[in-house]
Amino acid sequence: MAPPLDPAVLRGMPLFAGLDADAMAEAVALARPRRHARGAAVFTQGEAAAAGHALIDGRVKIVQTGPDGQQVVMRFIGPGEMFGTLAIFTDGLYPADAVAVADSVELSWPAAAMTDLMERHPVIVRNALSIVGGRLREVQHRLREVATERVERRVAHALLRLVRQAGRRVETGVEIDFPLSRQDVAEMTGTTLHTVSRTLSAWESQGIVESGRQQVVIRKPHALVAIAEDLPPLRSGD
Amino acid sequence: MAPPLDPAVLRGMPLFAGLDADAMAEAVALARPRRHARGAAVFTQGEAAAAGHALIDGRVKIVQTGPDGQQVVMRFIGPGEMFGTLAIFTDGLYPADAVAVADSVELSWPAAAMTDLMERHPVIVRNALSIVGGRLREVQHRLREVATERVERRVAHALLRLVRQAGRRVETGVEIDFPLSRQDVAEMTGTTLHTVSRTLSAWESQGIVESGRQQVVIRKPHALVAIAEDLPPLRSGD
Repeated sequence: MAPPLDPAVLRGMPLFAGLDADAMAEAVALARPRRHARGAAVFTQGEAAAAGHALIDGRVKIVQTGPDGQQVVMRFIGPGEMFGTLAIFTDGLYPADAVAVADSVELSWPAAAMTDLMERHPVIVRNALSIVGGRLREVQHRLREVATERVERRVAHALLRLVRQAGRRVETGVEIDFPLSRQDVAEMTGTTLHTVSRTLSAWESQGIVESGRQQVVIRKPHALVAIAEDLPPLRSGD
Repeated sequence: MAPPLDPAVLRGMPLFAGLDADAMAEAVALARPRRHARGAAVFTQGEAAAAGHALIDGRVKIVQTGPDGQQVVMRFIGPGEMFGTLAIFTDGLYPADAVAVADSVELSWPAAAMTDLMERHPVIVRNALSIVGGRLREVQHRLREVATERVERRVAHALLRLVRQAGRRVETGVEIDFPLSRQDVAEMTGTTLHTVSRTLSAWESQGIVESGRQQVVIRKPHALVAIAEDLPPLRSGD
């Protein structure tokens, strides 16, 4: 049997903000921890949603596949974030695949346990509403970008969003702290692998980004902001 | 002074589903009704969100403007639907313009009244979560469509969504029951007025739709489904 989870594991999670120690302990007691090796599926699009989920460690890609097989990356989930939980409150089916893109540890709450918890602690529902509200805004922004902006700006916006979400300072700039492929970037921005490669290569030759085997470092974040916002190019030196 | 509102006005609104008669009366007592003539702004993008809103009658267009002035129609709100309410739970600013596209009657609840109501009746928060969850899904679908489908299919999907949301049977087919311009359709699908006009004209010559002065009738919904889903064309007669 697995050792009991430390309640501290939920501290800092927006979904459980404002819960007192007893409620936190209750939430932890109902959670099931699972490890997922890089590449493993946490759940699958169209499958009945048996649980709500939160990530403790690692990174999970949420990717939706259309009827013709084209994929769109909806979000990368990081530590502390909930995911796949809305299905319980909508049609009961996962709307996308969730795939670990780094070795990950996930908590899940069976649907009945999650709705129970929410009933006893309405602050969780309120937290969920503000989290989902924030995500709705983000997707609305992305919809506007994909509908109206040229590809280069969309790619810049996507990378800047990842910097905010998963940026880690390194000597040469800010690194996206999980394996990110060019195909991922294409599927985040509604364009082709070819176009993403061309765009990143141009930026590399300008010293703005550095991208290697699934690693992306933004060397000049301000230059990327200028591209995203269509500002005049900055003078060299940043 | 305006006459007191009939509590029945909230009946059937998903946001207030499951409230008992007393709670419903309380919610109605706190609501402020307003009329908006066609073309009037209900609220403006970037403005401080002083209230939560719900529509009783008419139709309101939610449209977001990007930094360069390009617009994307996020949603048409119909009777019984809430709108502009999430800002209270996120950054406190309206993320888009809300414009009456038909003569409309709206209720609003000052932010403090809405959060109070939600605190006393947690079922409202739960309802809001499932409404917002459904909208997040819809926007995710649209993001996938705009990112991966060709224009003709996107336009077909947009019209079919409006049929479900605002379709009214008429002699010649199903009519979208509010004034819908070709520019609106362009701003729903991330394309140009020119492309929408060309697409609708082609469909008109095939007898699939009929569009006049801001009125759209779908004469052959099944043919439109076939286009949206990329099925082989149907034989004539439907």
